[in-house]
Amino acid sequence: MADPIINFSPGPGVVARPVIEQAAQALLGVPELRGLSIVEISHRLPFFEKIVADTKARLAKLLAIPDTHDILFLQGGARTQFAQIPLNWLVPGKSAAYVETGVWSEGAIEEARASIGGGSVDVIASGRASNYTELPSLASITLPADTAYVHTTSNNTIYGTQWHPMPDFVREERTAPARADFVREGGERVPHLSDMSSDILSRPLDVSRFAMIYAGAQKNAGISGVTLIIIDKAFMEAARRDIPSIWQYRVMAANDSLYNTPPTFAIYCTNLVCQWLEGEGGVEAIAARNRRKANALYEAIDGSDGFYRANIQTRAHRSEMNVTFRLPTPELDTRFVAEGEAAGLHHMKGHRKAGGIRVSLYNAVPESGVERLIAFMGRFRAGHAGG
Amino acid sequence: MADPIINFSPGPGVVARPVIEQAAQALLGVPELRGLSIVEISHRLPFFEKIVADTKARLAKLLAIPDTHDILFLQGGARTQFAQIPLNWLVPGKSAAYVETGVWSEGAIEEARASIGGGSVDVIASGRASNYTELPSLASITLPADTAYVHTTSNNTIYGTQWHPMPDFVREERTAPARADFVREGGERVPHLSDMSSDILSRPLDVSRFAMIYAGAQKNAGISGVTLIIIDKAFMEAARRDIPSIWQYRVMAANDSLYNTPPTFAIYCTNLVCQWLEGEGGVEAIAARNRRKANALYEAIDGSDGFYRANIQTRAHRSEMNVTFRLPTPELDTRFVAEGEAAGLHHMKGHRKAGGIRVSLYNAVPESGVERLIAFMGRFRAGHAGG
Repeated sequence: MADPIINFSPGPGVVARPVIEQAAQALLGVPELRGLSIVEISHRLPFFEKIVADTKARLAKLLAIPDTHDILFLQGGARTQFAQIPLNWLVPGKSAAYVETGVWSEGAIEEARASIGGGSVDVIASGRASNYTELPSLASITLPADTAYVHTTSNNTIYGTQWHPMPDFVREERTAPARADFVREGGERVPHLSDMSSDILSRPLDVSRFAMIYAGAQKNAGISGVTLIIIDKAFMEAARRDIPSIWQYRVMAANDSLYNTPPTFAIYCTNLVCQWLEGEGGVEAIAARNRRKANALYEAIDGSDGFYRANIQTRAHRSEMNVTFRLPTPELDTRFVAEGEAAGLHHMKGHRKAGGIRVSLYNAVPESGVERLIAFMGRFRAGHAGG
Repeated sequence: MADPIINFSPGPGVVARPVIEQAAQALLGVPELRGLSIVEISHRLPFFEKIVADTKARLAKLLAIPDTHDILFLQGGARTQFAQIPLNWLVPGKSAAYVETGVWSEGAIEEARASIGGGSVDVIASGRASNYTELPSLASITLPADTAYVHTTSNNTIYGTQWHPMPDFVREERTAPARADFVREGGERVPHLSDMSSDILSRPLDVSRFAMIYAGAQKNAGISGVTLIIIDKAFMEAARRDIPSIWQYRVMAANDSLYNTPPTFAIYCTNLVCQWLEGEGGVEAIAARNRRKANALYEAIDGSDGFYRANIQTRAHRSEMNVTFRLPTPELDTRFVAEGEAAGLHHMKGHRKAGGIRVSLYNAVPESGVERLIAFMGRFRAGHAGG
């Protein structure tokens, strides 16, 4: 039998096998529901309400989410959040500050500028000049007093950069340079909202420092179709109330994400992913494994005598989720992707905006998969270097 | 072995067994993807793009959707459409006309009134005075010249009413009274938008008469998490362009519903439901079966010497999807639901707003299930009438 496929898909990405198998079982029939499928029951049944409550409890434990924050399951992906956030908080007379670090930040800025609620949008820092191969400096940024919020993207899937630590995340051990919070003129902290679609649950977080975290589930937290929201309750209550109820976070929170029919199966899959992650030792353990995976791959790239060249040269900016690199020629990139696919290494083609290779190392990619990739890289280099 | 459960859930509702089994198989692994799960691949792969195209083609054939209309797969459920529709077309100086026939219409009206884009909202007819047990008369309605659109709800799940035919649907055979289109002062037809969440694919439609049809998939068209949109292209192009792109239908259409990560598994399930429906003979055949199912149940109710009493007394207003009735006392209602559940007849409790019993007869409920219900009703009546 052939080796299993190693799935480096950028998203929807790899799902751990036990999650797949349990999800398929519940799809075929749930004993507690006398054999009915998980997808054909009302979300108003206590059975499903318990799944929602249990998923929230597991996420709260995994990410140490404090009581000050609520957890919501919404639809529409991160892109809907790009529009829903300014609709809620960017009111006339206020401004929103965006840190631009790639295509997803650009999208968030674009949707904020199209917001019909009023307010202005400022890009306070941008990596655009480097084609997003560098994260912009955030040193000593002070924001105007009218700043409603600041928005960041934690990990940039297309380019392969990631904040370490998050701009407003101060590590206990100062192994990496700590950064100041975003502050307003006068010293007040500005609510920090972050799109963590591609690295949520991949590393510990100090949730208390964020007004809102949001993430499409389809990389590390489940399947596509559900968006996780972790939101500061006071910030949530301070949002507009004169907008449609479906776009008010507090309405969704008051109804425990069951205001309308939720994506029940996707929420159930997130529950299973949480259970799997607990079995793997939780977020600290997965973060250590993710670091080992990424470090091994970056070492193989950096140690290839220039045959493989990392897109992101500044080590502190490198993503542990999406490793991007290129070969000596675009023709070799193409051949690498094709031969890799044939060898069972799935979806290593870079995004068209970045070119080259992208290897996505989400939580469910095993270390053995990275080892197989590194062995393949060695064979490929031996076969093609100078050839 | 016990008889299989008959699933009368109001939604998410019953899914045909072959759909469940094929979905579970694809979840476990797709041979064409070398064993990868349908949920862990990029929506940008040709494999998934083909699923989207194929699902559109099947829906177009099943509902005879003309080339003038586009088909979209969105997220957020019908409730998001309640907000997204006025955002797109209800601009300052325009008004929107709503026909109020139940809780879902009320929600659509509420969200339109909260729309921050401007414009006014008129309820042009309402069944509220009858607690929605009657559909309002639409005879000789003429709308103001500034009317942007008229909005209806085709089937009212909670109360058990349904338009036969749809207000602007003129049948070829005039077996039912034909109704005039909604017209503006001067005689121009007004764009008609209809929420068909609970009866789409249950009966034939003249799609050409609608500017837009939308439906959460979780009753007759798949699982929760995807919303089907059938939209007139010219109407779509006439919408606002100064709103966030994620809420512009034309942006979703231009990107073939792949503007951002779609709910891939839910779309795949809709594809499987279409295939199942084709195998059942298509929409005409399922409509005939649905009519037989509903007629048999209404006959059992009406022929029970008043033990069972239909909530909807006007026969032309009765829903073929959600049959509502009550027993002589609320205590008997409760006992009926509990004993039915014990006998394998799942989820017959009425919505709290309507009370009593609700039996949902979506496409995948077999005729044998209705026969079992009718037999149960006979036994229950014999055991409790006058008792």
